[in-house]
Amino acid sequence: MISSTATYALRAVVYLAGHPGRYVNRAEISAATQVPHEYLLKVLQQLDVADLVESRRGPGGGYRLRRTADEITALDVVQAVDMIPRIATCPLGITSHEQLCPLHQLLDNASRLVEQAFGQTAIADLMPGKRSRTCDFPRRNLTP
Amino acid sequence: MISSTATYALRAVVYLAGHPGRYVNRAEISAATQVPHEYLLKVLQQLDVADLVESRRGPGGGYRLRRTADEITALDVVQAVDMIPRIATCPLGITSHEQLCPLHQLLDNASRLVEQAFGQTAIADLMPGKRSRTCDFPRRNLTP
Repeated sequence: MISSTATYALRAVVYLAGHPGRYVNRAEISAATQVPHEYLLKVLQQLDVADLVESRRGPGGGYRLRRTADEITALDVVQAVDMIPRIATCPLGITSHEQLCPLHQLLDNASRLVEQAFGQTAIADLMPGKRSRTCDFPRRNLTP
Repeated sequence: MISSTATYALRAVVYLAGHPGRYVNRAEISAATQVPHEYLLKVLQQLDVADLVESRRGPGGGYRLRRTADEITALDVVQAVDMIPRIATCPLGITSHEQLCPLHQLLDNASRLVEQAFGQTAIADLMPGKRSRTCDFPRRNLTP
């Protein structure tokens, strides 16, 4: 429904949200979220460009959120790395189609529903502790 | 939101729905829907396996729908070629997670919304003539 990149970004941001204020190094995020290390770098850079995270180099460095988990929606995170594909004009390039045809309207409506669901969900809603179980933070294989 | 294959399948089925009863050859479907010829073969074979279309070989042959446009939903067509990815168990393989974590629940909810939208839409709703314009059937470059 959304890309692997977007899922990885959500896992990383939810993990960072669990460590407010602290710069978390990439090895720890990678181990905890099971996002491959190099892939994670790309994702974190995109989150940085979108002003969702900030980074610090060197010992004690890493990444942390720029806002609280209540202030970031799942849609903010997804859109930082991979836009949900809305359809504004005829994808077949038929310029006379000022409105979308019913099929393309259906496809766009589906995207809109997903956008809404993500836009109504704060990162805080996705954090461990809100429910009894969470998949994304087994905290195994953490480097010391 | 859905795959290119699923979009192609929808365009092919909507086109066939506009020609009830008639076997339409693949060259005509390809030209009208702008789905590449070889790709279309794969899509039509999947629609055949799903019992949505039937085919006839030879002169006057081609493909036609097995049911009317009112009896086929957009979800039937999408699921014939490419399942909408529902999440039933922890994708990270954590067996102790009997329930989905909030993040995976959000992803599954998004898929469910899309499934519902497609399931509530009949192919008849997507056909030309229900609205003033349609993108998918320019009927240009048709072979005689």
